[in-house]
Amino acid sequence: MRSFAGRDILSLKDFERQEFFRVFEIAERLEPIARERQMSDLLHNKILVTAFYQPSTRTRLAHESAMLRLGGKVTGFSDAKMTRAGDFYQESIKDTVKMLEFYGDVIVMRHFQQGAPHEAAKWSSVPIINGGDGWGEHPTQILTDFYTVMREKGRIDGLKWLAVGDMRMRTMHSLAYGLSQFDCPITFVSPPDMSLTDEMKDDLKNYSLNFREAEHVEQAIADADVILVEPVVQPDYTKSRDERSGDVGGTPANYKITRELLATKAKSDAILLHSLPRMDEIPADVDITRWSRYWQEAFNGVVMRMALLALVLGKME
Amino acid sequence: MRSFAGRDILSLKDFERQEFFRVFEIAERLEPIARERQMSDLLHNKILVTAFYQPSTRTRLAHESAMLRLGGKVTGFSDAKMTRAGDFYQESIKDTVKMLEFYGDVIVMRHFQQGAPHEAAKWSSVPIINGGDGWGEHPTQILTDFYTVMREKGRIDGLKWLAVGDMRMRTMHSLAYGLSQFDCPITFVSPPDMSLTDEMKDDLKNYSLNFREAEHVEQAIADADVILVEPVVQPDYTKSRDERSGDVGGTPANYKITRELLATKAKSDAILLHSLPRMDEIPADVDITRWSRYWQEAFNGVVMRMALLALVLGKME
Amino acid sequence: MRSFAGRDILSLKDFERQEFFRVFEIAERLEPIARERQMSDLLHNKILVTAFYQPSTRTRLAHESAMLRLGGKVTGFSDAKMTRAGDFYQESIKDTVKMLEFYGDVIVMRHFQQGAPHEAAKWSSVPIINGGDGWGEHPTQILTDFYTVMREKGRIDGLKWLAVGDMRMRTMHSLAYGLSQFDCPITFVSPPDMSLTDEMKDDLKNYSLNFREAEHVEQAIADADVILVEPVVQPDYTKSRDERSGDVGGTPANYKITRELLATKAKSDAILLHSLPRMDEIPADVDITRWSRYWQEAFNGVVMRMALLALVLGKME
Repeated sequence: MRSFAGRDILSLKDFERQEFFRVFEIAERLEPIARERQMSDLLHNKILVTAFYQPSTRTRLAHESAMLRLGGKVTGFSDAKMTRAGDFYQESIKDTVKMLEFYGDVIVMRHFQQGAPHEAAKWSSVPIINGGDGWGEHPTQILTDFYTVMREKGRIDGLKWLAVGDMRMRTMHSLAYGLSQFDCPITFVSPPDMSLTDEMKDDLKNYSLNFREAEHVEQAIADADVILVEPVVQPDYTKSRDERSGDVGGTPANYKITRELLATKAKSDAILLHSLPRMDEIPADVDITRWSRYWQEAFNGVVMRMALLALVLGKME
Repeated sequence: MRSFAGRDILSLKDFERQEFFRVFEIAERLEPIARERQMSDLLHNKILVTAFYQPSTRTRLAHESAMLRLGGKVTGFSDAKMTRAGDFYQESIKDTVKMLEFYGDVIVMRHFQQGAPHEAAKWSSVPIINGGDGWGEHPTQILTDFYTVMREKGRIDGLKWLAVGDMRMRTMHSLAYGLSQFDCPITFVSPPDMSLTDEMKDDLKNYSLNFREAEHVEQAIADADVILVEPVVQPDYTKSRDERSGDVGGTPANYKITRELLATKAKSDAILLHSLPRMDEIPADVDITRWSRYWQEAFNGVVMRMALLALVLGKME
Repeated sequence: MRSFAGRDILSLKDFERQEFFRVFEIAERLEPIARERQMSDLLHNKILVTAFYQPSTRTRLAHESAMLRLGGKVTGFSDAKMTRAGDFYQESIKDTVKMLEFYGDVIVMRHFQQGAPHEAAKWSSVPIINGGDGWGEHPTQILTDFYTVMREKGRIDGLKWLAVGDMRMRTMHSLAYGLSQFDCPITFVSPPDMSLTDEMKDDLKNYSLNFREAEHVEQAIADADVILVEPVVQPDYTKSRDERSGDVGGTPANYKITRELLATKAKSDAILLHSLPRMDEIPADVDITRWSRYWQEAFNGVVMRMALLALVLGKME
């Protein structure tokens, strides 16, 4: 297995099966620090640079909190408008990275442009972590989800997945590439205009992913061990919050996981994941049911970033 | 007296008389760290999450500086636009807090919506500090003011207050509830359209606050031991700074504390407080007079947040 | 030589020749910490306040990273819109500083208004570092450039400079005042509407700067040991990025340093500086040539801020 030290985390296409398990193992070893709200000094002489060209709460803060819990330090920007580089001059990724690499020892980048972290990695002497790139990938989120499955179900192989949402989204791409390393059949359910592209489908066949598509969650939920949900309804930016809340409609039943659906159709030990934030695709009354695991996912998001930071900074092997 | 460990600081309605004195005592014990610009390691394994849905300088930075001086760490957001949660999806407070609680050990929240920190406290496993909620309360600011009075006058009971400003503002609400625990008569002076609501007046009577209203600061300043001022004039957002500065007018004499007024009418040992920023309700030439204490208030703002963080994190009893 | 402890860094007008060398000496001593990506605890009990009223990446992050590498802590704001002080009330610099001085031990300020850091220094009990003030100065950037010259050429005296760009910009002002302390003839090349003002020229003559002006870089490049470039073309804010990239034109040849120009006209050991970000005044194919030193400049930017912070905080003499 390749060493993680000095490595970029750009895509789950790059991940080998054994590497997933190595990441999970390191996460499990570091997990007590987060659970017991302790501080380690593992990364005490390291600085994380957050380069967020798009707003984010979970991804940015999970990385920052992970760094702090391991004794490291943080600098960076959380909005392209806060930088001359991003806003004013629209500086090339190369120029930006040839600066940022001197400000810290690892960079996590979110960018509206697909491939920006890959371009950054070309020029950087320090590891780049992809914190979400346009329609590209979101590898640390899906690693968090897989780790959550490991913790909750004790294994990954042999579990059946149902993924609901917009299949053009970056989390779905990372999910599909990641699952191709495991024995996990998956059913994708999405509105027709949000389905996997033909190009993506061909690619997933090359990656030997065992997948099929369905039109309604009811067609796939009975078999599913893991149900991963993303929004299919986007906010209407032309309206204020109050106007929006008055909207009729919302997520169509085809893409919505209700309490009733879970109670009548789902396996009793299935688990329900959502990276949040959500619209109404999972109503709040599902939160206290036996299926929901999205709060654990949020906690695991910190643990996973602790593992990835420790690994790419060469402090855990 | 209830322990402060693990407790939320949401409102001064919740504060008992003895608890005020406990907070002041802890503040006095921690004060030398700030005054001598030292660092403690009291909170070395703690992380503060700043969740600011509205801009703030004093409240956010005073909490951050207090945390750093006690050896703690800070993460968070300073503007809702920097978060997907606040801006994009307008996530529920519940969903946001079920994430933020994993990123740190205490959360300070400013929100444009009254009651948001109370909603957060319902769901959070870590203490929530209200950093100002809409028209609600601003308890840490008024605790700072009370502590400033203690330091400057040696006591709180028996002092007469004059409060000038917009009585619908959150600081005024916290002031009124807080003073109800002490033997402190207060006169409120505000423009008619900014006076206490009837509902609020009824509530303050239930809380046994000894208060009256006046139309002009001149009617109340002679008796006052403590004069607390807030703006009654708001910037005209439709104009640029240069246009604004050309405006005739400003704060009417009824609500303005001038040097001349202080020199001719105020007690020689009265103290003048303002949480800042200000418009022209206290002209700059008052700054060097014997009455002004608003810079000390700014310093005490850090000390008070040190005390509150140490208390709710269970590190001081 | 005056002590640096407690001193403001506002302008290179204030700098004496020996003080430059002291700063370089301290920078050289601290440089291994940055180069070897270590952490010092020199400033472990100090807090830096970043007060950025305008966006910045390099200046803000270089100061933050320098502070962190020396064991210090950071708080502050990176955008005036994130503060009530800057955005809402447009608070006076005095009022803002009488608050910020309690939140940390040194303040770095960028402001759109020339002279704002000088005004801040009047009121602050802690050192103020000018991080760029309107059309005023940008002393820490030019100290970085001088230090880069020292490192790359082994000396400053006796070197010939060529400066290309908008001579009304703050970096150019700091450059001109700084060079007046050394035996360094300089040629300024700028578009006619961006040339030195008559007032500035008179001032530079009083400062005994040995300067001349030229219309085209070709007229001055052959002699130059140091070529410092700034943009003369500004982005067209009325257009989106895509529209802009379709623009014909760009930087005129008079103000552009191309690979061909360097190869045919420049000294083989000349060095090329740019504080970045850039438009097209130095094309990307120059980056790998023998002349480019702008990445080293970015690295040195952290080292120089380490030196300045250590000096004004009295931790290095």
